[in-house]
Amino acid sequence: MARATLESVAQHASVSRQTVSNVLNAPHRVRPETLARVQAAIKELNYRPHQASRTLRTRRSRLIGARIEPSTDGVNGAVLGQFLQSLTARTQEVGYRVMLFTAVDDDHECALYDQLLDDYDVDAFVLHGTHADDRRTAWLAERRVPFVTFGRPWDTEPETPDRHGWVDVDGAQGTRAVTRHLIETGHRRIAFLGWPEELQGLGVGDNRRSGWASVVAAAGLGVPHGYDVGVPDGFDAGRAASASMLDLPSPPTAIVCVSDSLALGARSEITARGLRPGVDIAVVGFDDSPSAAVVGLSSVAQPLDEAAAACLRMLRVVLAAPAPPPGPPAPVLLQPRLVIRASG
Amino acid sequence: MARATLESVAQHASVSRQTVSNVLNAPHRVRPETLARVQAAIKELNYRPHQASRTLRTRRSRLIGARIEPSTDGVNGAVLGQFLQSLTARTQEVGYRVMLFTAVDDDHECALYDQLLDDYDVDAFVLHGTHADDRRTAWLAERRVPFVTFGRPWDTEPETPDRHGWVDVDGAQGTRAVTRHLIETGHRRIAFLGWPEELQGLGVGDNRRSGWASVVAAAGLGVPHGYDVGVPDGFDAGRAASASMLDLPSPPTAIVCVSDSLALGARSEITARGLRPGVDIAVVGFDDSPSAAVVGLSSVAQPLDEAAAACLRMLRVVLAAPAPPPGPPAPVLLQPRLVIRASG
Repeated sequence: MARATLESVAQHASVSRQTVSNVLNAPHRVRPETLARVQAAIKELNYRPHQASRTLRTRRSRLIGARIEPSTDGVNGAVLGQFLQSLTARTQEVGYRVMLFTAVDDDHECALYDQLLDDYDVDAFVLHGTHADDRRTAWLAERRVPFVTFGRPWDTEPETPDRHGWVDVDGAQGTRAVTRHLIETGHRRIAFLGWPEELQGLGVGDNRRSGWASVVAAAGLGVPHGYDVGVPDGFDAGRAASASMLDLPSPPTAIVCVSDSLALGARSEITARGLRPGVDIAVVGFDDSPSAAVVGLSSVAQPLDEAAAACLRMLRVVLAAPAPPPGPPAPVLLQPRLVIRASG
Repeated sequence: MARATLESVAQHASVSRQTVSNVLNAPHRVRPETLARVQAAIKELNYRPHQASRTLRTRRSRLIGARIEPSTDGVNGAVLGQFLQSLTARTQEVGYRVMLFTAVDDDHECALYDQLLDDYDVDAFVLHGTHADDRRTAWLAERRVPFVTFGRPWDTEPETPDRHGWVDVDGAQGTRAVTRHLIETGHRRIAFLGWPEELQGLGVGDNRRSGWASVVAAAGLGVPHGYDVGVPDGFDAGRAASASMLDLPSPPTAIVCVSDSLALGARSEITARGLRPGVDIAVVGFDDSPSAAVVGLSSVAQPLDEAAAACLRMLRVVLAAPAPPPGPPAPVLLQPRLVIRASG
């Protein structure tokens, strides 16, 4: 049944709306028998005087909008689910709520911002999945809607000053740690299995690749043809791409992967050839998904709870800032953690 | 920066609140130069006239409350993440929104219902994780707050009539399909690796166990000592419990598991012993997690998008029902799907 309204209480008690309102706000004006009847109806229908007026008074909804991601293969999706869970728990601790939406692209997401601002007076947004030419951050900044992003602004011009607060995890630092670890354990032929430049438009993949590239270069190791590959994300793509690497005349002894999905595919190809991951050939993923733990895949873990907490802290600073704002808050770049398992 | 308010616009334009209100509602009353100044301030601060009054008018918030689950091992958690994503997408299609919260137990969850009803006039709740003596459903029913559950009421008295609408997936049907499939592929010694009765308090585990038990009994297969085990959920527990099964004088040739976490542990123990899953010994999980797909674990898939859609359809019926309500809507029991992979 629908929640009780002033209307339905009035109907139930056979009185006017005004009488119900009087019972709530000026009971002395109501005759005792009517008062009793209306109070009984309020109790029976479990009517709650409406609280939206609280929002009207304070002009703060204490609502934060956030997108929930459709899970693709469910491997990498676990990261955002974890972030969202932490964000919900952390916002709840400080008296805020997370309101969800789903969106297919930037324009759709902007249209939903507009709707959420109009319909629910959402105070702020936490974005993720930032990318080059992000229309969402421009949309929000233009309208002076408070927001922070989990993910840095991947501007095409690197020297562009930040236009908004952001929290990110240092992907390059993660793959640097992976590559150093592989060199320390004796590897000299270390390949990178990444995403294709034209498919990502993200910056995330480039950033992770750069960590591998810098350590390999500093160690004076070569990058033979076929050692630096970009393919769309996914288990099957990872399997196929690693097969090509293993078929090279001088195949790599270790593969650093931009994602767990690709690494799990690579690991599967390795075992299918009767090779032992971590013994005959090392393979390391990124994101420390549950699947990585299950099959003993080394990976790079993002501090997701810390990231959610940092986003919220930053958002509260933004919300408390005077208008006009003093410029974006200082960004927060968190360090990921290398999780070494059997595979490398 | 905080969102602009009537107050801040008034301050910015050096006029009274009433003047700003006049600009918005009766601009003809305002002198042209003042009008221009206030309109400039509205634009500059991106002030949006507040919409909470809309809720006050319609008495419907179009908000649905739902709990987000802390991921435990992330294997089984994927199911609820997927359900939540579908629920968000489906509610969005019909103009509703999902508001999240986290709760540590039933009492905490009820306290949060109270808060969400007071603060945001949430229209209804979608619950999951129903269990025996569920305080949450009693709390909501007493207060006539509209809700449906994903998960049936696991009443201690099976003949208790339903007190609320629910959508569930037929777990017993899932394990029946698994066990029939194993018998058809030649297995005669089929064990069940479940949850302990005292730890779950759920009914879900019993229900899944009953599907295995009924098919095994109907086929005249015995259940030797050690073939029907309950352990807490998790990879390590699954590994240890399956080790005990494999050490039996007459070990099973197939293990039906109540969850993917347990099954992945069992599978790992099988391979660690040099046995081939699906060749030397079959193992089947439940929930078709991403990890199951990655390692080739057969499993039972819940139709989560269908479940979310059914919950929402039912909720809209409940919300549209007249007061007093005509009794709970008819429950919906969905069929899961057996996904056969290399392991069995």
